[in-house]
Amino acid sequence: MAEQLKGALILGQSGGPTSVINASAYGIIRAGLEADCITKVYGAHYGILGVLHDDLMIMDEEPGEEIERLPYTPASALGSCRYKLKDPKVDDTDCKKILETFKKYNVRYFVYNGGNDSMDTCNKISKYMREVGYDCRIMGVPKTIDNDLFGTDHCPGYGSAAKYIATSIMEVARDTMVYESGVVSIVECMGRHAGWLTAAAALANSEEPCVDLIYLPERDFDMDRFLNDVAKCYEEKGDCIVCVSEGIHYADGRFVSEAETSATDGFGHAQLGGLAAKLADVVHKKLNVKTRAIEFSLLQRCAAHLASRTDIQEAILAGRTAVQAMIAGETDKMVGFVCDRSNGYTCKTELFDLASVANYEKKMPLEWINEAGNGVFYDFVEYVRPLIQGETSVDMRSGIPRFARLKRVRAR
Amino acid sequence: MAEQLKGALILGQSGGPTSVINASAYGIIRAGLEADCITKVYGAHYGILGVLHDDLMIMDEEPGEEIERLPYTPASALGSCRYKLKDPKVDDTDCKKILETFKKYNVRYFVYNGGNDSMDTCNKISKYMREVGYDCRIMGVPKTIDNDLFGTDHCPGYGSAAKYIATSIMEVARDTMVYESGVVSIVECMGRHAGWLTAAAALANSEEPCVDLIYLPERDFDMDRFLNDVAKCYEEKGDCIVCVSEGIHYADGRFVSEAETSATDGFGHAQLGGLAAKLADVVHKKLNVKTRAIEFSLLQRCAAHLASRTDIQEAILAGRTAVQAMIAGETDKMVGFVCDRSNGYTCKTELFDLASVANYEKKMPLEWINEAGNGVFYDFVEYVRPLIQGETSVDMRSGIPRFARLKRVRAR
Repeated sequence: MAEQLKGALILGQSGGPTSVINASAYGIIRAGLEADCITKVYGAHYGILGVLHDDLMIMDEEPGEEIERLPYTPASALGSCRYKLKDPKVDDTDCKKILETFKKYNVRYFVYNGGNDSMDTCNKISKYMREVGYDCRIMGVPKTIDNDLFGTDHCPGYGSAAKYIATSIMEVARDTMVYESGVVSIVECMGRHAGWLTAAAALANSEEPCVDLIYLPERDFDMDRFLNDVAKCYEEKGDCIVCVSEGIHYADGRFVSEAETSATDGFGHAQLGGLAAKLADVVHKKLNVKTRAIEFSLLQRCAAHLASRTDIQEAILAGRTAVQAMIAGETDKMVGFVCDRSNGYTCKTELFDLASVANYEKKMPLEWINEAGNGVFYDFVEYVRPLIQGETSVDMRSGIPRFARLKRVRAR
Repeated sequence: MAEQLKGALILGQSGGPTSVINASAYGIIRAGLEADCITKVYGAHYGILGVLHDDLMIMDEEPGEEIERLPYTPASALGSCRYKLKDPKVDDTDCKKILETFKKYNVRYFVYNGGNDSMDTCNKISKYMREVGYDCRIMGVPKTIDNDLFGTDHCPGYGSAAKYIATSIMEVARDTMVYESGVVSIVECMGRHAGWLTAAAALANSEEPCVDLIYLPERDFDMDRFLNDVAKCYEEKGDCIVCVSEGIHYADGRFVSEAETSATDGFGHAQLGGLAAKLADVVHKKLNVKTRAIEFSLLQRCAAHLASRTDIQEAILAGRTAVQAMIAGETDKMVGFVCDRSNGYTCKTELFDLASVANYEKKMPLEWINEAGNGVFYDFVEYVRPLIQGETSVDMRSGIPRFARLKRVRAR
C-alpha cells in the first residue's frame, strides 16, 4: 500500500469533445468527492489552460443533481482546449506555472481526460513534477471518438459515435431508397488518419443491407477504382450507399478532400463543402447519376441522445479507476481497457504507461479491411458491436434533453 | 349513414419521407384490415406510380409483428414518388390507368399520404372517378416535415423533425462552445419556402441558451444586416449560433444559396456544399472569425430514433381517421388537425376539402417572426412545443434499431 497522499485533485478535459467525456468526468468527480485523502475536487476551465491561468472551478460546490446529469451530457462541461504543452526540457514556463497552481491549491492528484496529445501532456507534467520533487500523482483517462489510442482495447467516446453512425446510416439508407429512381449517396464520417468511425457503418449491415462501400484512410484511395466500384454497385442494385472517412488519401499522401479542390477549380478558389460533396460531384459528372452528399459532422461526436449505455458506463469506470489507482499510489499511467469477446463481452481496466501511449495513433488493423479496400470484415463488426449496446438515460424534459448545468464556482 | 361500399383499399405514400409517414400507413392498414367492408388492403409501390403500373403489394399478407413496427420505422416503407398526375381535363391517360387498376382489384377506397401535390393528386382522381361514375372514396392524409399544408393546425412529420432540430441544436451548441476561442456556427435546416422547421430551433432556447439568430424564408434576407447581427452577437458573447432555412432569399427573390454561388466564383463553376457552407465562408472572410457549417440534411426527416411520440400517435390517428371517414361515406377530403392549446393541449381530427388544400403552401405567420427578421417569438414556441412531446418506442436490437421489414407480396 502506497503512502497516503493528502491534497486536492484537478480534473481537465482536453481535445474534441465526445458524447461521454462528461461521464468520465462524473467518475473522476464522484471518486474524488468520496475519497478521504482528496480534500477538494477542482475542474480546470478549458483543460490545461485552466491550470496555467489559475482558472479552476470547485466541483464540491456543484449541486449533486447536476453532477448526476453529467454522464448524459455531451461535450466538455468544464471547457476544453487543444493546447500542446511546452516541453519543459526546452521551455519550462508552462510546467512552472502548473507547479505554481498545484502548490497554491495543494494539488496532489491530476487527471487529464483526452487523446494522444493529452497523454503527452500528462507525461510531461509527471516527469517535471518528479524532477522538481513535487509529490503528486498524474493519471490519463482516454477519450476520443477516433478510437486511435494505443494499448487500450478501445476508447470511451468511440462506442457512442459508432452507435450514432450505424443508426443514422440505417435511417439515411431507408430515406434514400424510397424512390424508384436510384441515387448514389456519399456519407462522410470523421477520422483524419484512422478509419474506426467510418468502419462502424458496417454495424448497420448486420441488421439490414445498408452500406455498399466503405473507404478508410488505412488504404490508399484510387478515384478510378472508386468510380468502378460505385458504377458496378449502382448497376446491380440501382442504388449505392458509400461511407468515406474524411481522411482518405491517394497513394502519394494527398488528402482526397484537398486534392479534389484544385481538380475541380483551377482558379485557386477554395471549394466549399466537404469530401462527401466533392465525391458526389465527381460521381455525378463521371457516371451521370443522381447523387447525394451527407456529412455527419459534429453530430457524430455530440449526439448524446443516442449515446451507448456501455460507453457511458465504461467512461465512468475509466474515470473512477483513475482516481482509485492514484490513491493506491499509481502515477504516470493511462487507464485503458482489456476486453474479452470470446464468451460474451467483458471489459476490465488496466494501467498503461503514459510514454507508450503519448503521440501514437492506432489505426484499423489491415486484416479487418477487405482486399479491394472498399469494405470491412465481420471480425471488425464483432469487435465493435459490444461497444454500442444499451441506451442512454438522458432526462427528456418537455420533449428535449435536460443536460447538466454547472454553476462553475471559481476557486480563489 | 352512408351506403356500405364493399371493396379493396389502396394506400399510397408520396413525396419526401418523414419519420412518421409509416405511422400513418400503420393507422390506415390497421383500420383497413379491421373493417368488414374493406376486402383487401393494398400498398401502392412507389406511390401513385404503383397504381399506374399495376404494382401493388398485399398488406394482408404482411406479418403482424412487422406491421406493428411501422410506426417506428422511418422513410416510406411502400416506396414513394414525386409524380405530378396529368390533369384529366388535358390528358386522361393517367386517370384511365388508375381506373383500370381500381376496377381490376375492385378498389373502392384510396388513401394518399403526402403533401400539397398529393392532395392535388387525390383531388384529380376524386373528380375523375365521379365523372366516369366509378363509385369510390378518396381521402388525403397529410405528411410533411415542412408543415406547410393549409387548414390543418400542423402536419404529421413536422413534430418529429422539430424535435430532432431542437435536440440536435442543443447538442451542437454544447459542442461548439467547449473552447475558449469563439466560433460562429451556421446550421442549415430544410424548408425551401416555409420556415417552420428552422424556427423549431427556438425550442432549444426554452431549455438553455442555444440559438442566437434565426433566419426564415418568410422574411427577405439581407447580407449586410446578417453580418451585422453576427458581428454584434459574437462581440457580446464570444460565440454565435445561427440557424438558417435553406430557402432564405434576397428581396429580389434570388435564393441566397444560389446567389452566393456566382458571387464567390465568377467563372461559372458550381460551388459545392450548401447554404451553411456558403454563409460560413462569407462570415469568415468578412468578419475574420472561425466558422463552422452544419447541414442537418436528411437526418432531420428520417431520424426515427428521435421521433416524437405525439407525432407518431397523431400520424396513426390521421391514417385511421381517413379510413373510418371513408367507410362513413366521406370522400374528396383531407384529414387535418384542430388543436386547442388554451388549457394543456388537445388535438382532434377534422376533414378539409381537398381542393382548398391542394397546391397551397402555408407559411409561418409573420407575427411570430421578430421585426429584425432574425428570431421568432415565444408564441411560436408555445405552438410547436406540444408537437415534440414524448419518445418513440423503436425496438433497439443489439444496439441499433430494428425497423419493419415488409415482405412486399405483389398482387396479381
